Amino acid sequence: MSDDLRIDADRLLRDLTDLAEFGGLPDGSAIRPALSDADLAARGWLRECIHAEGFELREDGAGNISARLPANNASARTVMFGSHLDGLTHGGRLDGALGVAAALEVLRTVRDNEIELPVHLEAISLTDEEGTWIPLLGSRALVGALKPSDLDQARGGREAFERRLAIAGLSAEGVLGAARDPADIAGWFEVHTAQASWPTLDGDAIGVVTDIVGIATYWLDFLGRADHAALIPMDRRLDALRGVAEFIRQSRDLVVNRFPEGVLNCGDVRVSPGMFNVVPERARLALEFRHGDANRFAAMREALLSLALHVVEIEGLALEVEQITTHEPAPMHRDAIAAIEAACSLLELSSRRTSSYAGYDTQIMAAITPAGMLLVPPAEAGGDPDVEREICANAGNVLLHTVLMLARRA
Amino acid sequence: MSDDLRIDADRLLRDLTDLAEFGGLPDGSAIRPALSDADLAARGWLRECIHAEGFELREDGAGNISARLPANNASARTVMFGSHLDGLTHGGRLDGALGVAAALEVLRTVRDNEIELPVHLEAISLTDEEGTWIPLLGSRALVGALKPSDLDQARGGREAFERRLAIAGLSAEGVLGAARDPADIAGWFEVHTAQASWPTLDGDAIGVVTDIVGIATYWLDFLGRADHAALIPMDRRLDALRGVAEFIRQSRDLVVNRFPEGVLNCGDVRVSPGMFNVVPERARLALEFRHGDANRFAAMREALLSLALHVVEIEGLALEVEQITTHEPAPMHRDAIAAIEAACSLLELSSRRTSSYAGYDTQIMAAITPAGMLLVPPAEAGGDPDVEREICANAGNVLLHTVLMLARRA
Repeated sequence: MSDDLRIDADRLLRDLTDLAEFGGLPDGSAIRPALSDADLAARGWLRECIHAEGFELREDGAGNISARLPANNASARTVMFGSHLDGLTHGGRLDGALGVAAALEVLRTVRDNEIELPVHLEAISLTDEEGTWIPLLGSRALVGALKPSDLDQARGGREAFERRLAIAGLSAEGVLGAARDPADIAGWFEVHTAQASWPTLDGDAIGVVTDIVGIATYWLDFLGRADHAALIPMDRRLDALRGVAEFIRQSRDLVVNRFPEGVLNCGDVRVSPGMFNVVPERARLALEFRHGDANRFAAMREALLSLALHVVEIEGLALEVEQITTHEPAPMHRDAIAAIEAACSLLELSSRRTSSYAGYDTQIMAAITPAGMLLVPPAEAGGDPDVEREICANAGNVLLHTVLMLARRA
Repeated sequence: MSDDLRIDADRLLRDLTDLAEFGGLPDGSAIRPALSDADLAARGWLRECIHAEGFELREDGAGNISARLPANNASARTVMFGSHLDGLTHGGRLDGALGVAAALEVLRTVRDNEIELPVHLEAISLTDEEGTWIPLLGSRALVGALKPSDLDQARGGREAFERRLAIAGLSAEGVLGAARDPADIAGWFEVHTAQASWPTLDGDAIGVVTDIVGIATYWLDFLGRADHAALIPMDRRLDALRGVAEFIRQSRDLVVNRFPEGVLNCGDVRVSPGMFNVVPERARLALEFRHGDANRFAAMREALLSLALHVVEIEGLALEVEQITTHEPAPMHRDAIAAIEAACSLLELSSRRTSSYAGYDTQIMAAITPAGMLLVPPAEAGGDPDVEREICANAGNVLLHTVLMLARRA
C-alpha cells in the first residue's frame, strides 16, 4: 500500500505562482478569459510543462489540454481529473488553476513513485469553463453534448468566437469533433476552491460534493392594464407590478419552507410602460432557481409556476412563461463520494458533504462517467501563505489518494 | 333676474365640430400637442372666432388667448374662465376644448342678452395644459409661478421648445413676462370632461370639484448587496428587490386602510445589476401619490417614507430618497363651490362633490384667485350625439349661471 504517499506541495505552489503571472492582478488574482492572450499564454505554459515532465501531451479539437501517464496495458481505460485555467473573477489565484496544477502534481507523484495502475491517468485542463464564449465549452465538447447551433449562441457572436478559435489554432469543426468515447473513461474527479461565502466548510478541510444543483431560468411576464394612476380607484386596478411583488414575497417563503435545500433568485424586473403616473401594464420578472435533487428540482419548478398562476388569478392578471435554460441536477457517483471520504479519513482530514450551488465541468462529465468533486476552502488573495500552502497540499493529497483508490478498483 | 337664460347648444356644438378638425382622428378625437401645427391651427381658429364675434382679443406672452367682454366700469376686476385647446389623448373631442368653447358661448350669451355686470368677463384658452413642453405652462406663466430655469426642463429640450415658441410668434422672454396682477382677477372657473373611469359621476350631471389633489413623485432607492445567487444562502442575502416587493405590498394596504381618499402608484422598478444569477444590489422604485387634503397629503408622505425606512430596516437594506416633484393640494374656494351648486339647483341638474385626482390649470389659478371647477361626464367618441349635446348644454349653462352669480356678487 502507499498510504504514506504525499504530493510535493512546494512543486504545486511553484506551478500556481507561475500560472498567476498570466493575466495577473496586483491583488494576486488572475483574470484569464478563455482564448484571451492571457489564457493562450497559460495554455502555452501548460504544454511546455507537460513536455518538460515527459508526459504524453494530448490536445483535442476543443482546446482541452491533457497530460497522460499511460498504463502498461495499452487498452486500459482512463481515469481523468482536472479543472480549468480560464478565470473571470477576483477569486484569488487558486480557483480552477488549483484543480489543473493539483492534477499535474498527482501525475508527477505517481510517476516519481513508480506506481503501476490498471488504468491510464489523464490530467486535463478544460476550455472556457467560465463561459467567456460558451459556458463549460470544453467538457460539453468532450462528452459530445455540443450541437452545431450551440456555437451560434457564443457570447460576442459566432464570428468573433471563430476568430479567437483560429488564433488559438482551433476551429468550429474541431470543437464539434472533440467527443470522446465514454467507454474509454473510467471516472472523473475535480478539485476546486469553494467560493468565499457558500457553501461554508466551517473549518472542515474538505467539502465532499454530493450533487451539483440543477439550474432553471425563466422570464415570467405578469400582464395587467395600463390605466392612468389618477383616473382609476386603487381597488379597480390590474397592476402587473403588484403581481410581481406578491410573487417575489411568496416565492421566497415557499422555497425557504418547502425547499430548504434549494435557492431562488428574482434578479431583474422590467416594467412597461414604466411611468410614475401609469399603472404597470407588464412586469417581466427574471427568475432563477437551483436544487440538487432531480425530483425536488421538478417539484420546485411546479410549485413556483403554480404560485405564479395563483398570484395572477388573485390579482386579476394574466401570465406568460418563457423558459430560458434548464440544467438538470448532477448527482455525484456514490463510489466517488466514498473514495473522497476514504481519502480524507486516511489523511486524517475533516470533511463534510455539501451540494454545490455553482456549476462546474464536473456536472457535464457526470453524464458519461462516475464523477466526484471535492471543494477546499478559498484562500484569501494576499492572505497567510501557510494557510494557502495547507489548502493546496490537502487538495493535492486528497485528489491523489482518491484517484489511486478508484484507479486500483477500476 | 335671468334664471331662464340658456346658452345656445347648437352654436356651442358647431364650435366643437370646427375644433375637432384640427389634429382630428378617425374616431372623432383630436390630438393637438401644444405648439404643434394642429394646435397653431386651432389657435388661429380661436382668434378668428373672437374677431368675428367682436370681442376684445387679448394674447399674452405665454400664448394664452382671451376673448374679453368689458364691463362699463373700465377699472372693474375680471372674472376669468376657460380651459385648454391642446390635447394628447384619445379622450373624445370634448376634453379641454369643451371648456374653451363653453367659455366663449357664455360670453356670447351674456352679450346677446345685453346683461350688464360689474366685472369684465374673460374667456381664455391656456397654453400647454397637457405638458407637451411644460405642464400647465399657460396658467403657471399667468400667475407668475414660472422661473427662468423652469424653461430648461422643457421636454424635448429648451432649444426645441424655443424653436416652436418662435414659430408660434412667442419667446422665452414673453413666457416669463406673462404674469398678471392678481388684484385684477375676481375669480376663475373651469369646466372639463371627467375622465372615462374616475371619478365616476354615476348618473349625476355635474361633478362639483372640492379640491384638486396634491401630487408627489419620488425615486426610492433600496440598496442591498450583489452576491452571486448560487453562493449565498437565502437567509443571508441583502436583496434590494425583496425590499421593493415588501414596500409595494405594504404601501398599497397602507393607503387603502389609512388614506382611502388618496391614491398611490408604483409605476416603475429598475434593478441593478439586473441578472438572473445575481442578487439585486439596487432597486429604484418610481413612487407617485395623490391626496386632496393638505394635512392628509403631508401625513401620507410621512407614512410612506416611514414605511420605506421600516422595510429597509427589517430587510437589512439602506434607503436613498430622491424627491422629484410636489404639487400641493388645491382646495376650491367655498364661494365657487356654492355658486356651482346653486347653478345646478337653478337648472334642476343633479350634482355631486368630488376630488379631482387629475391635475388641471385650475389648481394653478387657485393660488391667486377664488377658483372653482366643474366636471361633466365624458362623451364617448362616436357615441350618441344627443347624449353629447346634453352634456355640452349642461356644461355651458352651469358655467353661465355660476359666472353670473359670482360676477354679480363681485
